[in-house]
Amino acid sequence: MILEVYGHGGDLRTASARYGIPADQFIDFSANINPLGPPPGLFDRLREALPTITSYPDPGHRAFISRLAETLDTEEAGLVIGNGAAENMALALLALKPEKVGVVEPCFSEYKTLSEQFGAQVLSAYGREKLDFKASPEEVEELISASDFVFIGQPNNPNGVQYSLDELRRFAEAGERCRTYIVVDEAFIDFIPRSERKSLLKEIGRYPRLILIRSLTKFYAIPGLRLGYAVAHPETAAAMRGKQVTWSVNSLALIAGEACLAAGQEYEEETISQIARQRAMLRKELDGMGCRTWPGEANFLLVRLPGDWTAAGMQAALGAKGILVRSCAMYPGLGERDIRIAVKDRDACIKLLDALKQVLNGEGGK
Amino acid sequence: MILEVYGHGGDLRTASARYGIPADQFIDFSANINPLGPPPGLFDRLREALPTITSYPDPGHRAFISRLAETLDTEEAGLVIGNGAAENMALALLALKPEKVGVVEPCFSEYKTLSEQFGAQVLSAYGREKLDFKASPEEVEELISASDFVFIGQPNNPNGVQYSLDELRRFAEAGERCRTYIVVDEAFIDFIPRSERKSLLKEIGRYPRLILIRSLTKFYAIPGLRLGYAVAHPETAAAMRGKQVTWSVNSLALIAGEACLAAGQEYEEETISQIARQRAMLRKELDGMGCRTWPGEANFLLVRLPGDWTAAGMQAALGAKGILVRSCAMYPGLGERDIRIAVKDRDACIKLLDALKQVLNGEGGK
Repeated sequence: MILEVYGHGGDLRTASARYGIPADQFIDFSANINPLGPPPGLFDRLREALPTITSYPDPGHRAFISRLAETLDTEEAGLVIGNGAAENMALALLALKPEKVGVVEPCFSEYKTLSEQFGAQVLSAYGREKLDFKASPEEVEELISASDFVFIGQPNNPNGVQYSLDELRRFAEAGERCRTYIVVDEAFIDFIPRSERKSLLKEIGRYPRLILIRSLTKFYAIPGLRLGYAVAHPETAAAMRGKQVTWSVNSLALIAGEACLAAGQEYEEETISQIARQRAMLRKELDGMGCRTWPGEANFLLVRLPGDWTAAGMQAALGAKGILVRSCAMYPGLGERDIRIAVKDRDACIKLLDALKQVLNGEGGK
Repeated sequence: MILEVYGHGGDLRTASARYGIPADQFIDFSANINPLGPPPGLFDRLREALPTITSYPDPGHRAFISRLAETLDTEEAGLVIGNGAAENMALALLALKPEKVGVVEPCFSEYKTLSEQFGAQVLSAYGREKLDFKASPEEVEELISASDFVFIGQPNNPNGVQYSLDELRRFAEAGERCRTYIVVDEAFIDFIPRSERKSLLKEIGRYPRLILIRSLTKFYAIPGLRLGYAVAHPETAAAMRGKQVTWSVNSLALIAGEACLAAGQEYEEETISQIARQRAMLRKELDGMGCRTWPGEANFLLVRLPGDWTAAGMQAALGAKGILVRSCAMYPGLGERDIRIAVKDRDACIKLLDALKQVLNGEGGK
């Protein structure tokens, strides 16, 4: 049985019950979190801020939103602060009430789950293996014309690939033409070097139906606190805020958010360069072991296991050794041999590679 | 201009901007939080748990839900853990999709706000002054028969009064008869001595359309962390969970929740007896100053100011002295002379009374 009983990686509690290993002793490649951990000083800031939990969070998120608008060089009116990126997706669905939501499989499972949860029908296009699991621009345009609301992962999870700026502009223009909202999920974009990031953030004013969703929990390693945001046309942003439950974003998340935005260039650059180095090393070694990998640009890699190894078998074999990977068998468009691994620090990556080698060489079950 | 720009008390940031006083230096009677602060040891537990924010929260809330079921002596399947009581209200509305929601004014403004936010029409009954702002049982039954979903505050905010067990049973039976969900908001019930609490918790199995909503943020003084729960029929609970965004409840809230439930009797008893003592003292003194108060049983009091004092004038006069009270002028069914004050520790209460006396005696504006 797979570990993703709630549909996601990072479920340490299920893993702990399954393998009899304490939750904090796993090396977790199943969730894509910055291996450097939170920015220097963040824990001190939170320790100092603990007494503020006896007051309500600011329902207007004013200090954080002002800092965020400055950081992004954008208007506060176009920002929505959410209890994680997932809440922003839910708010967009609740505010815009699409009947048909388009997704390009394989993709983050919440696109489909949330859409169905809030009453939409889901239309799926499929990424092509030869395009590294992107769909062709024509296929995405077709999806846009058939839907009211389309999710695009940029970079997409689980393959880690970006659409080009030209492709994104085509999608945004098709969205305006077809009156379809284009929701670009940029939850992992911060892991890509600034010069290589493909985002329409600076052009958002041109596309009233474009919504960008970002997360602070992956890059700043605070998934337990929950913090994400959306950038959209001010009218769309106001409609999304209108569906939000008051105090949805907790006080410590808001304080952490301010501190993360102030973390500075060194932390950002060190994260990005470490991810790039370890990702290259992982790909080379995995390809050398007979795995197939795809050229993802984010902090995770899609991996096809060699021979007749299944994701479930490998997950169990590695899990027993205290190493967690994400099965991708349940992603439509992928198969039972596919797993996703986070890119972590060098030590952790070497442990993963050693354990994989042992398992592939016959130790552990299939 | 009133302080409740987001519709609620406890907005220290707005108060700070208004009165030029740092947010942490107000004595805040506008939010109803346990004056003892969090249970002993909670801050230590959270400090120790801070490193866990680098992992995702448990999407199944398993450790907390198991402890909660034990504490309440109820089935886990009937529990929904929410990002504050307000999220539980939203989940009930999203799951049950009522067309008509009944409320008894004056009441917590989110009943109406959330209902309208999620597309329902709101039907209002009005509490009667001579019943301490409760509606008569007949009026509540009429509301139940005209609605699909009715909110009952128990004790009700802002008057602090409870319906009797017989009245609650009448409402729950009317709910079954009329196929109307009865949502009893017990966010403040923990402040009432156990022997005087009127709750259908132990009878919930008899009423499939009954939902109880509770909060941990008020009694345990952790509003910044967000944590609440609902108790309902397992099918209703499952439908509510089906509308919840994954990881909606953050890791520290879940850890705090477990610690709060383990806080022990001494903290609970000390809280309840202190609230009772200070509430009696406040009522006596306020009545003696010419205010009118009502016999609330919770950790707050509804107060009608004497003479031609308005809530807005008093809020401003006290605010300038660093003391915050909640204007009740915007509560339908109350008037522009009505305020709500939290019951706090003796020192704080005496400061409030002294400041009120000064203001009523002519110092400060109207």
